[in-house]
Amino acid sequence: MLIQRLHHVAYVVHDLDEALPLFTDRFGLEVSVREHMDDQAVEALALDTHAGQIELIAPTTPDSGIRRFLESRGPGLHHIAYEVEDLRAALRQLAEQGVELIDSTPRRGLGGHQVAFVHPQSAGGALTELVQANPDH
Amino acid sequence: MLIQRLHHVAYVVHDLDEALPLFTDRFGLEVSVREHMDDQAVEALALDTHAGQIELIAPTTPDSGIRRFLESRGPGLHHIAYEVEDLRAALRQLAEQGVELIDSTPRRGLGGHQVAFVHPQSAGGALTELVQANPDH
Repeated sequence: MLIQRLHHVAYVVHDLDEALPLFTDRFGLEVSVREHMDDQAVEALALDTHAGQIELIAPTTPDSGIRRFLESRGPGLHHIAYEVEDLRAALRQLAEQGVELIDSTPRRGLGGHQVAFVHPQSAGGALTELVQANPDH
Repeated sequence: MLIQRLHHVAYVVHDLDEALPLFTDRFGLEVSVREHMDDQAVEALALDTHAGQIELIAPTTPDSGIRRFLESRGPGLHHIAYEVEDLRAALRQLAEQGVELIDSTPRRGLGGHQVAFVHPQSAGGALTELVQANPDH
């Protein structure tokens, strides 16, 4: 089984602090990590459930790709992330099967996880992230 | 904690059998349930991971709401589902907090789960399902 579990679902929002009360006050979840990710011009946070996380992403600059997403589609689901045991092996296997990868090698994601994105055209129309989890998160 | 865990993520696809090899052959997942849901004019299936399911939904009639979704947005993510312990209590609590519900009472979902939908405008822009799990699935 290449995919082990749902790791997280990511929402794009205009502003993290405006979006948070839905997830904290109403859904009862707690923020486990919050980071500026300057290479992507976003601020992001993760909320923990008993199985799987919710990620919220907001743009930090006018030319952030996430701001363009918000302008064209509005807030909502941005990507789905699946946990794999060995990310490099998973990327190699998927590439051999003709799956179009956005990242051919792992990079650092929110919370220090190793991540790589798969192109939506090769993943059922959904921007798809593979995660090799950082055991500290 | 109102929300216990990520229960499933649902994709809309044109055709279940065309969409399946990505999830079975490449991702290594197995189908646990497949049903025609005539009240919604769809056929749907669930694939199990070690934590969380993937749901695929395809239209079965020309006037299915899911077909209109496909025509306007193409295949991709359709909704996110969270598991709650007591669905009736969760719906009551959310309604009291001003959350706009699509279903004010539970109805039967894929696999015999009790489900209810929350309006995207009250749920971060994402069509959101709450699930009280059928212990048999």
